[in-house]
Amino acid sequence: MSSGECITRLRVRYAETDAMGIVHHSHYATWFEAGRSDLFRQKGLGYSDCEARGAFFRVTELFVRFSQPARYDEEVVICTRISEVRSRGVTFWYEVRNSENALLVTGHTRHICVNASGEVQTIPGWLRQILTGGQPGIP
Amino acid sequence: MSSGECITRLRVRYAETDAMGIVHHSHYATWFEAGRSDLFRQKGLGYSDCEARGAFFRVTELFVRFSQPARYDEEVVICTRISEVRSRGVTFWYEVRNSENALLVTGHTRHICVNASGEVQTIPGWLRQILTGGQPGIP
Amino acid sequence: MSSGECITRLRVRYAETDAMGIVHHSHYATWFEAGRSDLFRQKGLGYSDCEARGAFFRVTELFVRFSQPARYDEEVVICTRISEVRSRGVTFWYEVRNSENALLVTGHTRHICVNASGEVQTIPGWLRQILTGGQPGIP
Amino acid sequence: MSSGECITRLRVRYAETDAMGIVHHSHYATWFEAGRSDLFRQKGLGYSDCEARGAFFRVTELFVRFSQPARYDEEVVICTRISEVRSRGVTFWYEVRNSENALLVTGHTRHICVNASGEVQTIPGWLRQILTGGQPGIP
Repeated sequence: MSSGECITRLRVRYAETDAMGIVHHSHYATWFEAGRSDLFRQKGLGYSDCEARGAFFRVTELFVRFSQPARYDEEVVICTRISEVRSRGVTFWYEVRNSENALLVTGHTRHICVNASGEVQTIPGWLRQILTGGQPGIP
Repeated sequence: MSSGECITRLRVRYAETDAMGIVHHSHYATWFEAGRSDLFRQKGLGYSDCEARGAFFRVTELFVRFSQPARYDEEVVICTRISEVRSRGVTFWYEVRNSENALLVTGHTRHICVNASGEVQTIPGWLRQILTGGQPGIP
Repeated sequence: MSSGECITRLRVRYAETDAMGIVHHSHYATWFEAGRSDLFRQKGLGYSDCEARGAFFRVTELFVRFSQPARYDEEVVICTRISEVRSRGVTFWYEVRNSENALLVTGHTRHICVNASGEVQTIPGWLRQILTGGQPGIP
Repeated sequence: MSSGECITRLRVRYAETDAMGIVHHSHYATWFEAGRSDLFRQKGLGYSDCEARGAFFRVTELFVRFSQPARYDEEVVICTRISEVRSRGVTFWYEVRNSENALLVTGHTRHICVNASGEVQTIPGWLRQILTGGQPGIP
């Protein structure tokens, strides 16, 4: 695991399965989000602190490629990484594997930084530093 | 249908099913909520208007009794009724049937009126009148 | 509306919103699915009949581009179209607009045809004809 | 913690919040289920093994009383206990607290044992022993 990656382990919930007996595809977006939350926390800043300071990351793009299904009660491993930071946006990359290390899903999400009123803004300096530097802590 | 009842028709989504091939029990709370939204609208006041005027109904109790499962792509009919209005709270009663009129689920939710800061408050007079009188329109 | 398109109208549920006050991005995959279900039905074949006949469409790719957020109690309009049919797979394209016709979201999903055991199979002839021809009815 | 209790820790997901800024009430049913899954596992039997052996527990009743809301990124603790085992059904009791031990929610679920075809059946002896005795392992 490189310094910029974050690992999240989740147990598949019954509520996440569908009539095909596998995890419904809509839930991977939620798992990606759990990965992002952990990545923020690993960098020393909860995403809720981020919002409290007026920086919200609205999702502008979601992409998921499904290789193999996940099933109820399996433990899955989400690997999350920041793949690009721009002046007003950030891209996260994800990989989900099962406990036998088989690849289930890859994907990415793009986000734009908005303020509490929903207006697009430049990512504040303190936040940009955290996202790019990988240095924990808030100035 | 008595004047105080509201009928909502929904088509079961695949995402709402689980590995048992039936609608996961957690989704009925969401269907009840769709019924409440329609009931508010039928009384001439969207629940979002209600929130815009500073009256939020936080859920304090949820009860669901399951008689028969619902399945993907079925049309279900939710019947919603206000069963009690008190000074600071309101109780809704629900019945869900399938298209052949078989009873699937009954239940109720209790709610307490809070302001935008989450503090409990007496239900405002204009709202109480709408909830009890069944008269459409805002004074 | 061209003959190959299908229109689905949904009312945004409170449960679909998040702490940002807008519809959580994970729910669009579910709305797309509601659109696909309606498209199948419009072609004279419920997707559940499809499954009963041994043809399941597993999702292999999901893409969503978010232009503008949707909010609680809004009515949204999903436009669904089949954009490609191949020997073993099919691609659907979607557009979601609000009631004032503003574009909220565009996206696509790719699917592979599997049997009840989850093995990839060629799309059966009767199904291929329905998907490509737009002719209602089952031979 | 008594020998019959099971503790589950979850981090609140952003997708679980709603426009009121708190966890949407429908998600507690899913958290209860995560608690049940862990309780089965603690007793030496995954619920998926249970299903593989032909014993399914369909939910017949759900009750939740909400005391205090949970918020994004909080860690919540679910305490799950079997409160009653009858010939064909079982009742689970739940308590959810936040990391400061404040009570958020209490509730129960009732379940009936059905076979793979959905027909009600007596709880098999091997399963009854596990549920009542608290002894890990399958005979």
